Amino acid sequence: MLRPRPVRLRDVADTAGVHPATASRALNPATRAQVGADTARRVLRVAKDLGYRPNPIARSLRTARSHTVGLIVPDLANPYFPPIVRGVESVLEPAGHHAWIVDTRGDPERERAQIESLRSRQVDGLIVATALREHPYLRALHAEGVPMVLVNRSVEGLDVPCVSPDDTSGITQAVRHLLGLGHTRLALLGGPSRTSTGAARTRAFRHAVRDAGLADDPALLAEAAEWSEESGARAMRQLLDTRSEFTAVVAGNDLLALGCYDVLAEHGIDCPGAISVVGFNDMPFLSRLRPALTTVRVPHHAVGAEAARMLFDCMAEPARPARSLLLPVSLVVRESTAPPRG
Amino acid sequence: MLRPRPVRLRDVADTAGVHPATASRALNPATRAQVGADTARRVLRVAKDLGYRPNPIARSLRTARSHTVGLIVPDLANPYFPPIVRGVESVLEPAGHHAWIVDTRGDPERERAQIESLRSRQVDGLIVATALREHPYLRALHAEGVPMVLVNRSVEGLDVPCVSPDDTSGITQAVRHLLGLGHTRLALLGGPSRTSTGAARTRAFRHAVRDAGLADDPALLAEAAEWSEESGARAMRQLLDTRSEFTAVVAGNDLLALGCYDVLAEHGIDCPGAISVVGFNDMPFLSRLRPALTTVRVPHHAVGAEAARMLFDCMAEPARPARSLLLPVSLVVRESTAPPRG
Repeated sequence: MLRPRPVRLRDVADTAGVHPATASRALNPATRAQVGADTARRVLRVAKDLGYRPNPIARSLRTARSHTVGLIVPDLANPYFPPIVRGVESVLEPAGHHAWIVDTRGDPERERAQIESLRSRQVDGLIVATALREHPYLRALHAEGVPMVLVNRSVEGLDVPCVSPDDTSGITQAVRHLLGLGHTRLALLGGPSRTSTGAARTRAFRHAVRDAGLADDPALLAEAAEWSEESGARAMRQLLDTRSEFTAVVAGNDLLALGCYDVLAEHGIDCPGAISVVGFNDMPFLSRLRPALTTVRVPHHAVGAEAARMLFDCMAEPARPARSLLLPVSLVVRESTAPPRG
Repeated sequence: MLRPRPVRLRDVADTAGVHPATASRALNPATRAQVGADTARRVLRVAKDLGYRPNPIARSLRTARSHTVGLIVPDLANPYFPPIVRGVESVLEPAGHHAWIVDTRGDPERERAQIESLRSRQVDGLIVATALREHPYLRALHAEGVPMVLVNRSVEGLDVPCVSPDDTSGITQAVRHLLGLGHTRLALLGGPSRTSTGAARTRAFRHAVRDAGLADDPALLAEAAEWSEESGARAMRQLLDTRSEFTAVVAGNDLLALGCYDVLAEHGIDCPGAISVVGFNDMPFLSRLRPALTTVRVPHHAVGAEAARMLFDCMAEPARPARSLLLPVSLVVRESTAPPRG
């Protein structure tokens, strides 16, 4: 940034009448004991008088610590993410670290450019919410020793710490809730199977349906191309086009469920009268929707906070084997689910 | 970040058999012509063979350009901001710049620490959505020559470019809409008057009401302490406590309007049957609410894109006088407004 000529270390050294290396040692608490007490006092007084501010970039060239963490989010417009960001910050900030957030919009090229930009400014580590099951770039970063924690989604076979909601339990609770209401024809509006969340939730749905003695009918499974309202709507149209009968839809996340709402409204199909809908995430604002969405509540704040704690562990002890943390989820029943008609 | 020992400029120079200064000139396209063509070719080949990556931090110490911009947002959980962020990025990215987002949560101390952290990593400029009418810190940054553009809100008497929605026009449209429906007792749920948006919208409301020949009744004005649902609810309770009669509420923004919804629901007051509500911003998801909120649409994407363009102008020509850009807004009538009862 533009500034009026800054006071440099050399100015401090010259005014104090010492060598710049001596001034540097005096100014750094970690090396201050290496210079005489009088010298140290003189240098510190001069630095204060001149308004000297150490240049943290020059310093980080030596120490390679910036006290910043990059937070890589796939879609900042998804209200699910800001509460996770707050959880991350709740742990980073008391420790004197800052989070810089970048929004990849699910674009691998943007992601790579943004992460390279963060790395080039030497962030201390990354919290990554954009993982794909196959993700060569994250794999390469890990191989280079970049401290990194994944949230929500994992990379297959990559030994990196990960914090995620318990997808299987969440979907199982959703399916059991619908079975309990009397539904027997359940459809899945699944998320992209290239993400671990998409794959795990779909797998959990099929298991839960089969465990209930129902048929695992492929005509009742649709996959959205993205985690978005538009993709959810497209997949829901596909489901309706198959003309299979179903009275309930389990959506891979809340945005997909909103896309489902849109298509039901287009077709004049009442929710929950004709079709029940369940989401996943319990993102903010859902209780205000028409109808208020039944969904799986994820402890957003805890997801972020645990990820930040894991990243600190990772930075402190790089050789430590990676742990995965599954956080418990719970079903929140609202208005979008009801017993099937008739 | 941790990495295996990187290849340094000195390694390239040694292998190519040249002085490091020569290697540096050869590697930089801007200075390459200063060394012989054969030397340049040799250095470039060696750099490629060794996998040399120039250190952008060391480079930015010289050029003071990082191609990053800090984006300072007061509340990332307000769905109004992500579309503005996207507008900013739509201009930054084709120009090879990245946005790093920080969420101040309206806390001046956090804001200062976050901005200092961004400055210390030498972002090229700031896009600031957190301005207060009195904002000594932003004033100081401006005095230091930090390139900066304000969005949404301005600092009083500070000569810095600003992009904001036309607050006066928006509120005037909202009031006229309610008058047209037949309302004559309008209340204002205003935003914090320490923000320019809060002050301007409140002023516009009072003018529009007086222009219509209605009384400017102080009992019909409440001020929320923050731009949040909770503060909106608190201010709405205050309005109801005064026992003044009113049939419509103009809220300073959409989140305040949602707080208003909550209190109406608490009291069993029907919206729009008994009380109409208008918001401001047209943040995402409003059309899905019960009732869908009538509001003032702000061109979010354009707000962000224009701010980014102004920042580039600012960096290219620091001496240029600051301009303010007011973007046009329009009323979106949905379900939360109706003629008054009886």
